Amino acid sequence: MDGTGPVWQQIGSSFVQHYYRCFDTNRLLLGDLYTDSSCLTWEGEGFCGKNAILQKLTQLPFEKVQHSITAEDHQPTPDSCVISMVVGQVKVDNDPVMGFHQLFHLKNVNSKWICTNDMFRLSLHNFG
Amino acid sequence: MDGTGPVWQQIGSSFVQHYYRCFDTNRLLLGDLYTDSSCLTWEGEGFCGKNAILQKLTQLPFEKVQHSITAEDHQPTPDSCVISMVVGQVKVDNDPVMGFHQLFHLKNVNSKWICTNDMFRLSLHNFG
Repeated sequence: MDGTGPVWQQIGSSFVQHYYRCFDTNRLLLGDLYTDSSCLTWEGEGFCGKNAILQKLTQLPFEKVQHSITAEDHQPTPDSCVISMVVGQVKVDNDPVMGFHQLFHLKNVNSKWICTNDMFRLSLHNFG
Repeated sequence: MDGTGPVWQQIGSSFVQHYYRCFDTNRLLLGDLYTDSSCLTWEGEGFCGKNAILQKLTQLPFEKVQHSITAEDHQPTPDSCVISMVVGQVKVDNDPVMGFHQLFHLKNVNSKWICTNDMFRLSLHNFG
């Protein structure tokens, strides 16, 4: 989407690409995407602040991980932020592929787009 | 969740309950939950403003609809808003149950919590 579409769509899409690239190659890089007031809800469990979030994400118990995005939606908020919702699939080590969905709320802080809110859920328990 | 947990969780949880109750009984009531600057992305298609959103939601081609929530997550944003992410199942007329996920961004406007941003996706095409 880079270079086309409304600016908030480019912001959301670029962030999402960057996020999963970092996640799948070097999770330590994800620390730069959060601040001390960011919130993460991971499978229903809450983590507040960059350090707690980074600790959770880097200690997830797998070696290899690969995300692929099925669909992503982006919108601007009334407070000049951007919300992104991603649905996709994730493969972890030699486990079967799992569906997931994830939400990001992005805010421009000191000329950089950071993630203030992050929610992640596997789709495992939601089949019809 | 009403009456327990942080206030933003009560706000999100109450809104989500109210939203699906309206959706499943009388979709016309959903108009009160949006403003003229609200955005809806429905299965990737965008609708802006209360009228366009209400038109989309009321013209969805089914008679009976029933949502059930599998999990809901809520967080406060830095701008005193609330974000909610819902994953659940929806049964439409006599079709098989389908998984869905939906995001709401809620803002307090004139002492009322309204939905400024709404994104909905069926989970149909995201199986491993």
